[in-house]
Amino acid sequence: MRILGIDPGYAIMGWAVLDLKGNHFEVVDYGAVTTEAKTEMPLRLAHLYSELCAIIEKYKPEEASIEELFFNNNAKTVIHVGEARGVAILACVNGGLIVNEYTPLQIKQALVGYGRADKKQVQAMVKAILNLKEVPKPDDTADAVAAAICHGHCAGNRARRQILK
Amino acid sequence: MRILGIDPGYAIMGWAVLDLKGNHFEVVDYGAVTTEAKTEMPLRLAHLYSELCAIIEKYKPEEASIEELFFNNNAKTVIHVGEARGVAILACVNGGLIVNEYTPLQIKQALVGYGRADKKQVQAMVKAILNLKEVPKPDDTADAVAAAICHGHCAGNRARRQILK
Repeated sequence: MRILGIDPGYAIMGWAVLDLKGNHFEVVDYGAVTTEAKTEMPLRLAHLYSELCAIIEKYKPEEASIEELFFNNNAKTVIHVGEARGVAILACVNGGLIVNEYTPLQIKQALVGYGRADKKQVQAMVKAILNLKEVPKPDDTADAVAAAICHGHCAGNRARRQILK
Repeated sequence: MRILGIDPGYAIMGWAVLDLKGNHFEVVDYGAVTTEAKTEMPLRLAHLYSELCAIIEKYKPEEASIEELFFNNNAKTVIHVGEARGVAILACVNGGLIVNEYTPLQIKQALVGYGRADKKQVQAMVKAILNLKEVPKPDDTADAVAAAICHGHCAGNRARRQILK
């Protein structure tokens, strides 16, 4: 199964494409789509959408994993991140992907084993699980990889439960 | 100038297409795109996007006017409204429209003359300005009409200032 992990954001949208083969992952590619602060928001959203569509077209992932948003104190930011998340989900649906959503707690649980893990612990696990020399940069890309791994674990567990039934 | 007004929402997305001819408006059409609560959010976003694209394709508006979101106490709601707003803006940009954003205060100011006007006053002005027999229903549609009128006024004022220069 080929998974597209997405860490939603309007300035930086992290993405990662991983193949889940049996019980291990292979990295296909990862990176970040960025937009400039001086660009008007409608054009930033259009850029994020078209770049994500191009990534989906290139790598043809089957399932998407995207982090759920939580409210923070900056209302302006949360609305714009919501807008960016909306166009990211749309790119996935229009590309024929099944969209799976996970809370930050679920992602930390899946990678580190407990939901209160900090960013460094999650990144160390990303590096270890994928056997990478470095943690993917920027943090948004590492978060997208983590989201993809989380979905791989959850989907793998579901498949095993099906077999054991 | 043909204007598409949008009141962003994920359950109900109000829309209105008006022609600004000189200093008066003509109604082309208005309505609301709705999604069902039982449908998964990714598919609701995809439905909103495709319906808005169809409206843009049908009526070929040149400019869009969309209400800006403000934080309310329901963080879950504000994020999903942000997602819906993101796909609405994307439909406009991908349809070649210029996207204009107005705060609720600006819209009330443009219609009623002061920013603290209540919903009933705004709706009464929508009905009067467009010479309608009834206020457009649901409220989301009336809000979309108000957004379109607001942009027409602002664009008209800009044009007059250009002439007077």
